[in-house]
Order: sequence, then structure tokens, then C-alpha cells
Amino acid sequence: MAAFGVLAMVLSVCFVVEGKYIVYNTSAGVVPGKINVHLVPHTHDDVGWLKTVDQYYVGSNNSIQGACVQNVLDSLIPALLADKNRKFIYVEQAFFQRWWRQQSDEMKETVKMLVSSGQLEFINGGMCMHDEAAAHYIDMIDQTTLGHWYIKRDFNVTPRIGWQIDPFGHSAVQAYLLGAEVGFDALYFARIDYQDRAKRSAEKKLEVIWQGSKSHGSSSQIFTGAFYAGNYEPPTDFYYEVNDDSPIVQDDIELFDYNVQERVDAFVAAAYFQANVTGTNHIMWTMGTDFKYQYAHTWFRNMDKLIHYVNQDGRVSALYSSPSIYTDVKHALDESWPPKLDDYFPYADRIDGYWTGYFTSRPTSKGFIRELSGYYLAARQLEFFRGRNKSGPTTDSLADALAIVQHHDAVSGTAKQHVADDYAKRLSIGYEECPLLNISYCPATEVDLSVGKKIVVLVYNPLGWKRTSVVRIPVINKNLSVSDSTGKLILSQLLPIVNASLSMRKFYASAYTGESPSSVAKYWLAFTAVVPPLGFSTYVISSGQSSVSTKFVPNSFDTGGIEVGQGNLKLIYSGNDGKLMKYINGRNSVNVSLEQSYSYYVGSTDELQASGAYIFRPNGTHTIQSEEKIPLTVFRGPLYDEVHQRFSSWVYQTTRVYKEKEHAEVEFTVGPISIDDGNGKEIVTKLKTMIGNNKTFYTDSNGRDFLERIRDYRADWDLQVNQPIAGNYYPINLGIYIKDESTEMSVLVDRSVGGSSIIDGEVEIMLHRRLLHDDGRGVDEALNETVCALDTCTGLTVQGKYYLRLDQLGEGSKWRRSFGQEIYSPFLLAFSEQDDKWTNFPTPTFSAMDPSYSLPDNVAIITLQELQDSAVLLRLAHLYEVGEDKDLSSLATVELKRVFPHRKINKIKEMSLSANQERAEMERKRLSWKVEGSDTGHRSDSRGALVDPVKLVVELAPMEVRTFILDLDSDIVQYSTR
Amino acid sequence: MAAFGVLAMVLSVCFVVEGKYIVYNTSAGVVPGKINVHLVPHTHDDVGWLKTVDQYYVGSNNSIQGACVQNVLDSLIPALLADKNRKFIYVEQAFFQRWWRQQSDEMKETVKMLVSSGQLEFINGGMCMHDEAAAHYIDMIDQTTLGHWYIKRDFNVTPRIGWQIDPFGHSAVQAYLLGAEVGFDALYFARIDYQDRAKRSAEKKLEVIWQGSKSHGSSSQIFTGAFYAGNYEPPTDFYYEVNDDSPIVQDDIELFDYNVQERVDAFVAAAYFQANVTGTNHIMWTMGTDFKYQYAHTWFRNMDKLIHYVNQDGRVSALYSSPSIYTDVKHALDESWPPKLDDYFPYADRIDGYWTGYFTSRPTSKGFIRELSGYYLAARQLEFFRGRNKSGPTTDSLADALAIVQHHDAVSGTAKQHVADDYAKRLSIGYEECPLLNISYCPATEVDLSVGKKIVVLVYNPLGWKRTSVVRIPVINKNLSVSDSTGKLILSQLLPIVNASLSMRKFYASAYTGESPSSVAKYWLAFTAVVPPLGFSTYVISSGQSSVSTKFVPNSFDTGGIEVGQGNLKLIYSGNDGKLMKYINGRNSVNVSLEQSYSYYVGSTDELQASGAYIFRPNGTHTIQSEEKIPLTVFRGPLYDEVHQRFSSWVYQTTRVYKEKEHAEVEFTVGPISIDDGNGKEIVTKLKTMIGNNKTFYTDSNGRDFLERIRDYRADWDLQVNQPIAGNYYPINLGIYIKDESTEMSVLVDRSVGGSSIIDGEVEIMLHRRLLHDDGRGVDEALNETVCALDTCTGLTVQGKYYLRLDQLGEGSKWRRSFGQEIYSPFLLAFSEQDDKWTNFPTPTFSAMDPSYSLPDNVAIITLQELQDSAVLLRLAHLYEVGEDKDLSSLATVELKRVFPHRKINKIKEMSLSANQERAEMERKRLSWKVEGSDTGHRSDSRGALVDPVKLVVELAPMEVRTFILDLDSDIVQYSTR
Repeated sequence: MAAFGVLAMVLSVCFVVEGKYIVYNTSAGVVPGKINVHLVPHTHDDVGWLKTVDQYYVGSNNSIQGACVQNVLDSLIPALLADKNRKFIYVEQAFFQRWWRQQSDEMKETVKMLVSSGQLEFINGGMCMHDEAAAHYIDMIDQTTLGHWYIKRDFNVTPRIGWQIDPFGHSAVQAYLLGAEVGFDALYFARIDYQDRAKRSAEKKLEVIWQGSKSHGSSSQIFTGAFYAGNYEPPTDFYYEVNDDSPIVQDDIELFDYNVQERVDAFVAAAYFQANVTGTNHIMWTMGTDFKYQYAHTWFRNMDKLIHYVNQDGRVSALYSSPSIYTDVKHALDESWPPKLDDYFPYADRIDGYWTGYFTSRPTSKGFIRELSGYYLAARQLEFFRGRNKSGPTTDSLADALAIVQHHDAVSGTAKQHVADDYAKRLSIGYEECPLLNISYCPATEVDLSVGKKIVVLVYNPLGWKRTSVVRIPVINKNLSVSDSTGKLILSQLLPIVNASLSMRKFYASAYTGESPSSVAKYWLAFTAVVPPLGFSTYVISSGQSSVSTKFVPNSFDTGGIEVGQGNLKLIYSGNDGKLMKYINGRNSVNVSLEQSYSYYVGSTDELQASGAYIFRPNGTHTIQSEEKIPLTVFRGPLYDEVHQRFSSWVYQTTRVYKEKEHAEVEFTVGPISIDDGNGKEIVTKLKTMIGNNKTFYTDSNGRDFLERIRDYRADWDLQVNQPIAGNYYPINLGIYIKDESTEMSVLVDRSVGGSSIIDGEVEIMLHRRLLHDDGRGVDEALNETVCALDTCTGLTVQGKYYLRLDQLGEGSKWRRSFGQEIYSPFLLAFSEQDDKWTNFPTPTFSAMDPSYSLPDNVAIITLQELQDSAVLLRLAHLYEVGEDKDLSSLATVELKRVFPHRKINKIKEMSLSANQERAEMERKRLSWKVEGSDTGHRSDSRGALVDPVKLVVELAPMEVRTFILDLDSDIVQYSTR
Repeated sequence: MAAFGVLAMVLSVCFVVEGKYIVYNTSAGVVPGKINVHLVPHTHDDVGWLKTVDQYYVGSNNSIQGACVQNVLDSLIPALLADKNRKFIYVEQAFFQRWWRQQSDEMKETVKMLVSSGQLEFINGGMCMHDEAAAHYIDMIDQTTLGHWYIKRDFNVTPRIGWQIDPFGHSAVQAYLLGAEVGFDALYFARIDYQDRAKRSAEKKLEVIWQGSKSHGSSSQIFTGAFYAGNYEPPTDFYYEVNDDSPIVQDDIELFDYNVQERVDAFVAAAYFQANVTGTNHIMWTMGTDFKYQYAHTWFRNMDKLIHYVNQDGRVSALYSSPSIYTDVKHALDESWPPKLDDYFPYADRIDGYWTGYFTSRPTSKGFIRELSGYYLAARQLEFFRGRNKSGPTTDSLADALAIVQHHDAVSGTAKQHVADDYAKRLSIGYEECPLLNISYCPATEVDLSVGKKIVVLVYNPLGWKRTSVVRIPVINKNLSVSDSTGKLILSQLLPIVNASLSMRKFYASAYTGESPSSVAKYWLAFTAVVPPLGFSTYVISSGQSSVSTKFVPNSFDTGGIEVGQGNLKLIYSGNDGKLMKYINGRNSVNVSLEQSYSYYVGSTDELQASGAYIFRPNGTHTIQSEEKIPLTVFRGPLYDEVHQRFSSWVYQTTRVYKEKEHAEVEFTVGPISIDDGNGKEIVTKLKTMIGNNKTFYTDSNGRDFLERIRDYRADWDLQVNQPIAGNYYPINLGIYIKDESTEMSVLVDRSVGGSSIIDGEVEIMLHRRLLHDDGRGVDEALNETVCALDTCTGLTVQGKYYLRLDQLGEGSKWRRSFGQEIYSPFLLAFSEQDDKWTNFPTPTFSAMDPSYSLPDNVAIITLQELQDSAVLLRLAHLYEVGEDKDLSSLATVELKRVFPHRKINKIKEMSLSANQERAEMERKRLSWKVEGSDTGHRSDSRGALVDPVKLVVELAPMEVRTFILDLDSDIVQYSTR
């Protein structure tokens, strides 16, 4: 035996342990008294960015970015089914709906079960996670509503949480309108200014009660959490995507590199770190990031183990959670939270890293989106009047395209060029008629009328007020007359199309349609259309001699100055150098010096921080003026005067002063921005007055509330100024104004731009950007938009308008609000060509409303949409803030019976803003929070009263938006036989 | 209405189509008359390469390589369940077993169902896809057997297909022994010489009938397919891993970029291309590659669509298939296939790209593996004698480690350094006693015996013959005596350990154990052990004066020469320069000039192709000899003479001539290879004779058959010689020999090396490699092995042996085969320390066999292993090829009753080589193939007869390996009480 004892030594080889199937305990809930780590599994799926939305969905074009949302959703369902404690949130309905469409009925039932059990929760729930700087509030509402409807339709649930984790700064409108008003109990995001975040971290004030509306008061409050790390990712080394290189949890003792204690220690350390900057002992870990969970199992496998072993360890508690659960737990603690007013703009992620360039990036895209936004509002009205198509074309495709382009890399201008092209393609599919009208190309009107044709022009007014405005149409004939639907000739005016416009028109038509226009419009035909509210008028253009040719006035450079304008407003240009000198309104005695100029900032090429699609980092500013004198041409006519100026070879400007209006309309043509000197440039126009605005200016929030901005100042912290220009830029969607004790100057815009008041008395807005370097925020392309056609590629030219008006102090808001609404909802034109003998107007003019009724000046219909059969969605918006105007910041009323005189309103339900639940239910459910320094969490508010279902009169308090679903008799015959 | 007609134009927006859930038709089978594309979903999972086997399994260390086998298997099961037409093959049991251990019973049942239905098929089925150049056939059998057993145990199936898709060249032993003899119906791989592949492609001869054994004749034939593209990947643009950038099949018409026709066209084009180089109209697409299917769904989703749409298209047929199905279809066509003999070595993937460096790469690893291979064989014998532990240590861990290191990036030396370290760690866990004996460090014997201790040395002989060999043990005392188990003093000899060895011992002991040896051995104590077959003898070492000190003979550089050796063999060294001059065997009149030298090749650093872990690309050759004269020291003693030579500061050599042996034993110490000149170097030793071998030499296949090699020639094609050295290198595991009409020279090795005969009369073998560049084949590290200890890092030193003998023509094989077996299975030593008074030998000597019995000289027991209770695995191998030796290439017999005299053999079952099925069943099932130019597919063979269960005598024909499972009475008392 001893010999075998020796042999036993020889045989001292290793042993094999039987393997074991481990069942992880993932059932942990909140543990009072401990730090509770809420693991929130999520994916952030950009609705287009480096790849198009469809490429992201199907997972093509992976050489640009490995991302496939289909994988995420395909793999998620079995992962959730594998353990009922696992949870997931899904956000972007644009993707979810693509996936849902492709699923079997069986799968749909499974997903419904997961949603119903709360394992899968939809949050935010719009079609995309919209941008908060460059998006218009009506678009934000529409895209959120669309997503919320899908969720309601398919799952009968309403999202509870705002989840704007990626957008680059956060707007007041997001907080109160797209937050509180859609019934959200909380709003979470990642990106706030780095200085702000540092202070809030130190003070444990990352989580606040945000009151985004002055007008709505405490009823607009929403619990808001900014993530401690400035991103929406897991702590370092807790990433578990396929091929991620975080250490996985290796808990098989039979394999090498067992590391459970090490991972638990790392987990606890990360939890302590975060708890140290977070109020209460509940912290949220955002377990995911862009396009993660392509194989969801890999995340859940590791999170299962972490929850199991961390809870075994016991130092902290770990649980599967969701933002809803996290919010409820925070709420149940009954703590008071710090208050927050205003917004979170502008956003800098680090020194010199101001994300204020994207306010203007891709200005033509921004313009196209805004144009179609107004178009979509009108198109839905028309669709409602006509009755929605049961089969065939509807506005749904345009709805979908517009929803997608609200994404925070779409309207923001921060997607790659091919993705921007994809967005444009989606939009143009929904916009068929005269798509190139904006560059003077409109085949339907460019008919040779000398051979006995007539053009019937239908002019639709989507506003609730009667409206009189000049309409301009490109034509090829000189001798034309315009008559109204009664056959009466009306005043019209013919203006030449300047050569620069004609060549641009030729180039862009070729670039976008692949063919040159067959006929060449040479003139603008202008006439004044008068259109009833929610209605149309028709006009006929035929050959004749009635149009008044505009009179060309040669330059007269003398010291006397050149006066332009034949109504109340006069603009005085220097006879010396052609520059604007004065703005005079004869009616209200405004008479001020006013200079206007163009400048450019040179985009920084600093390798640590260049100016790019996101970032504005100027490196010097230069005035644009090719010569001493600005060539100036003035055209005068009975409807309006027009001033043509050439600031440089790539900056043209046309200023129109309408006889019947008191503002100036400035149409700029900027581009191709010269890069011959090797410099990227960011073009601004500056308006200089003597107004003593004392560093203060006002910009709107998504086209709605105006917020006070103070140069080099933030209300929430002591600003360290490192970018005195970029750091004072704010997004503008409606307008910007400055004021002093006597005067205010307002500038309204036709699209999203960035702007500021860098020097007292001045306002500047950025119109175009062309940059040669990437700014290092991921898009990995220089924002150097080019257009190729006719064997040439050249920088993109942008053509747009802004509107300028000076008022006596306190008088500006009426114009800003009412005319602002007209900018958003211009006349909608339709054309038909008829032969000479045609005279029949079955419906020459039309108004949906009672002919004697008009909406009050402070109310707009921002949605009128047939849902199905008799159900109609109606949104009414009060256009004024509390205290904004002495007359119009008051309770307004809308008589629905007179809005819909021909249809019986059987039923009216007031809904949440996204119309996915009744308002009463929303208000009942919504959490109230205690605010530090405030007596109670009780909500105070000024709101319109509940609507009496018999009287059907809607009251609207300042800034109130009310959403209704009406049940109407579907009697559309009323309209068509009238 | 007309107005609404106009409005309808306005509303010409896009339409929305309802989505549909698509069910793909994947049920297609073979379609006669069409090109049939067999889609074979697979993953190739290296059992260690850039990451360790466990890192690959759990998916850690992903920064090196994104790879997680757990994901593959986790995701595979639901993907197969989702569609019963989907198929998958899995290969590497090392990974599968790791996964299987962790699964729930429920999952195991599911997987069993999938295996049973054929959806999941195990092919190849060893623990790894072993290397075919550097692996020993016994290791190949063991690792394959282990995998096959797991598959048999868990699923009751036997793999049918050899799948050596990645190894870098293919051996004859693979084809016949690990192919035909394990019952495989086909063998597939990717890597054959690029010139060979070009010719075979042109002639549609990529698929052949390979007859790998001369001795076994046509019974060793196997259908063998080399993949047309030289890799095991899908055609270009048909990769579907998560984030792969091949175009996915986008078949949703409601999304942009619909591409079904484009993908179908690409599929058809790729199929035509492959069909053009393939015999018959069946082609196989290997749908996968390294570590793919981490989310299996992504592959199957796209393959489902391809099968669906390609079959709709109809030009070619596409189907889910497997190598088994493909093989059966090919077989059913009843075609004749071209024959192939010999092997597929060496492998070049392109000009100058000869994968012949890895034959030697990491020589210490190769040595360690070979050492443990022999150890494992012996350990299992001992385990069998003792009775397998029911709990506690068994040989299983060593079995597992040895299986893993047979992987084609393990024993090949082509893994990253940290992975090589992991392999060594796994091996050393199974090798506990005296692990550093090979570098003269063995604490158990290094006891100070002057204080009254004794060392009992147990010497075990794993061979079936009685054996007499000199044993050497490091000791610290000078005055020692050795006695046998009867107490009789026996002759012993003491040799000094040279200083170079001592310092190396100190350095390596520190590097590997972290501590310096506490005592310092100064001497080798040598004595002759005589051990019965399958048995042991014991010897006792105590203090005393009996050892004969070896006599140091000073150099005498004179013209007369220095004669070494006191038996039949004499080596004559030049008295002038110390070089070997002559080899004289007094018994058989061999008397030949013989020179021996060391040289190095400079590793090419050509950026297109450097020499590296895989590739041997020399750039010039240099003889190593630091001075004119080689310092030479001779030690003479009664057991053997020893010659010490110093060829340079980093090449030492000890040559031993044993009195009772007729070969020279050369122990080389090479390293740290100097890189002071900036060059990587590959060290060879050359043996130069006057033998006129006419370009011809012989190297073994995995330690078994010798294959004829002809310099600058390939039997299968006209070789274009671009690397006249590297292109003539072949793997050597047993030995290499050359011969002419009168003489043969054989060199046997102790591990895998590369070697050749580059000049007639010469043999060279490569001993060590140190290179400073990566060779671009993926490992991405230079093969620059270093060892760090005692605050120094230095190049690795290798110590090893080769054995040299010259014979009259026809006499060499006896030595090569019998002594070769002794090299593989050296005496196994075990030690115990006893006090001075100990005298008790309860089992002083032992043989498992009948004392009067011995195995015939041409048979070895290559496996004797207790499986469970009474079941024992026995493998007997005939060691000679047909015609190799005039006496021993004959039918041999083994009397099992005398091998197991103490145990009753109740039952004997002859098994397939991997013992996973009965041999008769295997032979019945195995497919026969028709060979071009051959009359029939009928198998001719010379084999031993079926074993009579009463007589229990096993016949073995030349090269035959027979595998049995014996049922033995479990009477182990027989051994221990004897």
C-alpha cells in the first residue's frame, strides 16, 4: 500500500467539479435605509443620425455605425420573457412602429402581455426624441401625439415619463407643454451645462422641480432629473453589449478569472460615488446607450448576476427598475426639491464647447421643415373639410415624415449629409404641389397665358381670422390681369425676377429635379388676396393689360437718403453708401436710427474644439461688404416697394415694405459661402439701434413663451465666461426682441436660427453656416453643405426671410404674436390651369366658420384633424403670455358652434395635450411635488373653465393650449354643396 | 366640387400601406438539375488564440477580440427553435461542455431534442480542432475521444464528419486515423497550398478521396473537401453577424432601400462562381467564421430570406444544410472522385507565405505538452491499477488540459503570449510532482542525505516491455549510494551540474515559482533502472561512498581526435577545433563522417511577409560558432560519457553516449537568442553526412507514419519554388531520416519541431525561434518569448534533446519505432523521503502483466484507462508500417489474459478509435466512395482478425490501432496485496 501511497502523489492531478445551473435572484425591490441602485435597461435609438432611420432599423450601412434596432426589439422579447423581474423601457415610436408592423399576431399578443405587466414600458413615447432648440412647439406636439396614439391604440397605455436624454439643452416648452401638459410625472435628461452640473452635483441639486411656464405657474411643475455624469450611459465598466469590453461578471468557479467580488466592489463604489451627488438614497443607472441591446440577453445576463451578488453582498441594494418606478419611489419619500425656472439653454459640455451652432446648422433643412409644418397644419384642415380618404392619399405620410424630422439630429442639422438627404426625401414625398415655389419654380403657374389659358389660384387661409396679404407668383408673361372670383379685376403688380435669382433657379431645379425648367419665369406677379378664416378665395390670372409694372428707381447716391415705403412705414437708406439708416413709422411716431449689416464669424479650427455642426466657436468676426458702397436698387409699386442690395458676391438681400404693413420683410440669399480663404464661416445679420437694452434680450421657447436672456449671465450659477459670443447664443423659432424704456425692436424668423444681442442695442441672428472641420461630437463630418448640378458642385445657398419691426414699448407683442402666426401659417396656394372659356366657380370662396365669426386675436387653431369617421381632434392655443399685452393677455373664448356651424357637436372630451387620455384623468393621476421654499405642493394656475357641453364655449387663459376630441355629425355635404 | 378637386391636388400626399408579417419558406431541399447551394451555418471557435479559452467562453477581454462563445450557444437554441428547417453545426466540445454544464435541465432537454432532430449537429467533435502538424497522434486520439465521449454521454450520437477547417496544413494521420478510423464519412478543411488550390480549382479537384495510410490501403480512404476560397467564410457580402457590414436583405417594401433582387442576383452570381470550380452541382457555403453567431438570429434572419427569395427566383436552389447532408448528397450521386495520397504539408497561403515556422514556435510549450502527454498515458495506467478515485483527484483535469492544448493555436505555438501562459497554467495544474525536474529542480530529491535521510525512488515503466535505462536525479550530496529494492548496492555515477545550468535553474525557478530553491543541487546522480513492463521498480538513495565520480577529461586539441563512448558507439571529435567528426558503431560496422553544427536564419522583416509565429521566411543563414574552436569538455563514467560543448554564449550542448546504447543523446540549451543586432533568429542544428539521399528524406506524420519528402517537389502539382528553405520544411514529431544505398541516419526528437534536408547528406531541425515582427496572420504579436525574474527580463531559453543514430540501410526502423516509444513514454519517477531506519518495501517491484509475458516489440499500449467501475479502455497500436522492417512489419498478437493476469475479462467490445461506437457498427455505416482510375470503391486492407472472446488474443496488422472496451472484474486487491 505504501507504494500506492507514493503513486497517489504521482496522481495528484486536478479535480473536476460538477457544473451547476444557477438561478439568479432578481426579485429585489427597494430596500429602505440602503442606497438603492435602480438599474434602468434602455436603448437610445436615434431616428436618423449617422445612418438613416430605415438603415438604423434594418441594420444596413453598418460600416458607418453598427446599429440595428430590429435586433434590439427582436432580442428584447425573449430576454424579458426569460425572467419576469427584468424590465425595459422603449422610447422612439418611429422604430417601434416599424417593428410592430412586421410582427406576427402571436408576437403582438406576447408584447401586449409584457407591456401590460410593466416589464416593457413606453416612455417619452413620441415618434422620436425631438430636438428642443430647433423644433417648433406645434411639431413637438404633433410628433408626440402621433407616437402616443400608436401606443394607446396598440397597448391602451399612456406614457408617464419624459425622457429627453440626448437633446442638447432643454427648453421651457419641453418642461411644461410636452411634460406637464402631456401628463408626465417626471422628465429626465443628460445634457446640461457643465458648470451648472458641477454646481448641482456639489449641492445634490441635479433633481429639481422645474416650472417652465410663467403663465401656468405651479401647475406647470414637473419633477426633473439631470443625470449626474452628463450622459445616459452606465457607470464605467458596466457596459454589456456584444463585444463591449467591460469586465463581464464571471461567476463560474470552474473557469479561470472568477471575479464576482471584484465586480461587486466596483458596483458598490460606483453606487457610493453617485449617491454622493444625488438627493435621497435612490439612484438611477441608465443601463444602455445608443443602439444598445442588439442582443439584449448580454445585458440582462450580467445585470441578473449583479443584482444577485450585490444584494448578497448587502452594502447597497440593486434592483431592476424603470424611470416610472424611480419617480414613484422618489415621490413617496415626500421630500422637498429645489425649484428651477426658465430653461437649460445654452448647453456647453465643456469649456469652449457651446452647442449653439446647431441652432442654425442646415438652414435650408430647417426652412423646409418649418414650411411643411405650416403646410401640414393646413392640409389636415383641408382633409377634415373634405373627409378623410378611406383608401389612397392622406396626410399620414407627411405626419410621419414631419414627426421623424423633429428628431434631435434632424431638425437640429446634426445628422450626416446622406441622412439629411433622407429626411428631405421623406418630407418631399409628402409635399407634392409646387415643391420648388420657394426658389421661384412652379410649373403650374408658368404657363404661357398668351395662348388663351387661365390659371385659377386658390388661396387658403389656415388661420381663424380673416386675412389680407400680398401673394406673389412667378409667371412668364408680362401682360397679365388678375380678377377675383366675382370676375372683378383687382390691382396687381409685376416685378422682374433678377438675373441672380434666375440662374439660381436653373441650378437648383436641375439639382433637385434632374431637369431644367422648360419655361422660364421672368416676373413675379403680385396681388392682394383677401381670405376668410379657415377658408379660401379664388383668383383668376389671364392675359391682359391690368398689372401695374413696378417702377424701377435708379440709385441716387446723395446725402439726402433714399426713402422706401408708401404706407406708414418708411425705411431710409443712405444715398451715400446704400446702407439702411432709419426706420420711421408715421402712425406711431417711431423714428429711430437703424443700421443693418452682414458679418461672418470664422469657424475655429482649433483641434481641441473646432466649430462644427453642433458647436459654435468663432475665431474672429468680419463685416461683409465687398465695396465701400452697397449696390442698391429700388423698385416701387402700388402694393409694395422692394429694395435689392448686394452685400457681396454671395450675400444678396431684398427688403420689402408693404403699403398696408408696418414691418419690413427682409429676404436674404446667402451662399455659396466662400471658402476660398480656407476658412469656414458662420453668417450673421446684425441690426443696430440705440436701444439701451442693458444686456437683456428675449428669445422664444420653441416658438411659444419668450424668455429673458441676460448676456454673460445665468440665473442658476455664477457663469465663467469663456465664449463671450457662442455662450450668449440662444435658439430662436419665433423671434427675438430687445427693449428699453421707450422702444422695442422685434425680429421674427421663418425657421429656427440662433441669435443674440452681443452688444447693447444690437440684435444678431445667424443665417447660414459652412464649416470645414468636424467638431468632435460624433457626426464626423464637416458641416459643408454642397449642391451638385450642371457639372458643378458648390456650397449651398440659403434663401429665407426675417421680419423686422420697431414699436413703442409694450406694443410689440401684438405683432410678434399675430404676425408670427401668419409666418407659421402662410396662405396655401393651389393652382389649376383652365382654358380661356372656363368661367365656372362652383365654390369661389369658402369659410368653414360662421361667416360672421372670427377667432379672437389671441387664439389660434393649432390642430384640426379628422381622426376617424366622426371624431375630430381640435387644439386651440392662446397666443399670449400673462402680462405680455395689455389687451390680449386675457382670458379668450372660442365658440365652437360658430367654428363648426355646419356640423353638430355631439360630444366633446377634453384631452391631455397628446390626446391619449382625458384631461381630467390625467390631472387626477399626476403627481404633485413639494418645492423647497414653497409652502405646499399645491398647484396654482389660471386656466379656462371646463367646457359646458351644451354651450360649447372654450375659455383659454394666457398660453393655454386645450385639446379636445369632438364627436361631429359627419355631414361634409354641407361644405361641398354650398 | 371642382374646388375640392383642386384641394385633392393639394392633399396629394403619400400613402401608408399596412405592414405584414412575412413567413419565409425555408423548407427547400435538394433540387436535382440545379445548382444547389448548401448553406451550412457554423461558428469557428478557437479553443484559445488571442484570448484564453475561458475568456472566449465568457466573453471577457473583448478589447483584444470581441468574442463570446456563451452568446453563440445561448442565442442559437431559440434561433433553431424558431424554424425547424434551420440547422447548425457545433464543433469544439471544450466550449460546448462549458456551456452544457451551466444549463438547466429544461434547456438540456431542449438541446437534446434539437440534436435528435438533426437541427443541431456535432461534427468533428473533439474537445478542440487539433493542430495537425505539432500534435502527437496519441494526443489527437485522446482529445477526440474525450469530446466524442461527452457527445455520446449527453446525446447518444456519434459525429460523422471531420471538420478541420482552420489548421494550417493537413496530415495523413488526420485523414486515416482521426478520419476513417473514427468513422467519419468525410473530412473538410480550408487551408491547402495556394498553388495546389489553384490547380485543383481549375480541374474541379478540390474534392478528393484521400488515402492517408500506405499500410491500411483503401480502407483508410475518406472523402475530403478543400474549400474553394481557402477560407471557411461565406462569400463576400454574405456575413450577418451583429454589426457586420454586408448588405442585409431588406425586403420590407414600406422602408427605403428595398434590395431583394439585388441580393438574389449577388447570391446567384456567387453560386455560379463556386459551381464553376466544384465537382457536381452541389456547393457548400460555410455561413460563419471565427466566433460568429453571437446573436444567431441575425444570421438566420437573413438566410431565411435568401432561401425564400432565391428559390422564388429559381435560377439556383438554396437550402439549409450541413456537412453531413452535403456529404450524403455527394455520395448519392455515385460519382468517381480523384484520389489523393500522402498529406497536405507544407501549407503556403501565398507566395513566400510558408506556414512552417509554427512547427517549432514556442518550443518549450511544445516540450511541456509532449512531456505531459507521455505522463498522462502513464498516469491513467496507474489510476487504473489503483482504482479510480470516486471523489477527489483524478486524471480528468490533465485530460482536459491536454485536450485543450492540442488546439491548432495552442501546441502550434501561434497563440498570444498570455494565452500560451494560460495553457501552461492549465497543464501545470495537472502536473504537480517535480514540475521543474526538466530544469534540474526537484525538491523531493534535493534533501541533505548526510543527516540520515533516504530517498525512495519509484521508477515506473509505462511500456509493455521490460526496460533498462539510465536514470538521472539532481542531488546536493556527493557521497551517495544507490541500492535496489532487495537492498543490493548498484552502480551509480555522479556528474557535476555545470554552472550555466545552475544559474539557469535559479532564474527559472524564480520565474515560475516566485522563489529561489532553498537548497542547491550540485550533481546529477545516475544509475541504471531495470523495470518490468507496465510496472515499477524501487531504488533507495542514501549517503555512502558507492557512487563513481565521473572522470573529467581535459581537452586535448590535437590531430588525433577525441573518442567518446565506451560501448559499441564511438563519437570522434576533432582534437583541432572540437567539432564532431565521426560516428562509429563497432557492432555493425557503421563508420561514417558526421559533422554537427548550429546555425540561425535571420527572420525576414519584409513588410509584405515577415517571419513570425506561423510563417518561416528566412533572410540569410549564419553558422553559430563564436570562435574558431568549440570549447569541449568530456566527462567519462561507467554508465555513459558526456561531452559538453559551447557553440556560443547562448548555445550549449551536452552529448551523451551510453555504454549500453547505440545512439547519441544530444541535449541542447539554446537561448536567450541574441537580438542585440536587431535581428530575430531561428535556430537550427544541422547534421552533415556523405549520405547520398538524392533530395529525399522522411518525416513522420504526427509521430506515426513516415512520409517520403522530396526537396522542391510536390506530387500533386508542379511546384513553383519561391522559398527554397521554408518551402521544404515539414513537421517532425517522432523523427526524420535520410538514406542512401548503404546507410540511413535517423534523428528522433522529444517534441514537435520543423525540419528538412536542404542539402543532400544533411538533416536539419529547427530548435528555437525568436522573432521581432508579427507575420500578419492574426496573432498580432511578435514571437519574442521572454522570461522575467530577479529583476531581469530575457529571451526564453529552451532545453531539449534529440537522438541520433546511423544504421546500415534497413536497420533504422527498429530504433526509430522502439526507442521512439521510449522517448514518448520515459520512466516516470516518484520520490518519497524516509528516515534512515526505513527499510520496509511492501511492494518493492510490480508488473501489471504476467511476469513471464511481454508485449511484442512492435506493439504499444497507447491507452489503458479505467472508465467507470469495471469498464476499461484499452488501445493497442502496432508501431510499424507495412514493409518498414523485415521482422516487425508483421502481424502481431497480444494475449489479453496475460496482460491482465489478475483480472477476469468478462466482455470485450471492439470500438471505433474514439470509442464512441462499436467498430462493427462503424464499418457497416461508413460510406464507400468510387475513386477515379480505381476499379471499385471496394476496400482492401490488412487487419487483425476479430477477437475471439474466449481466447482474447488481439491481432494487430502493421500500423493498426485497435480500441477495446473491456469489462473487467474490479478486483484491484490483486495488485495491492501482492
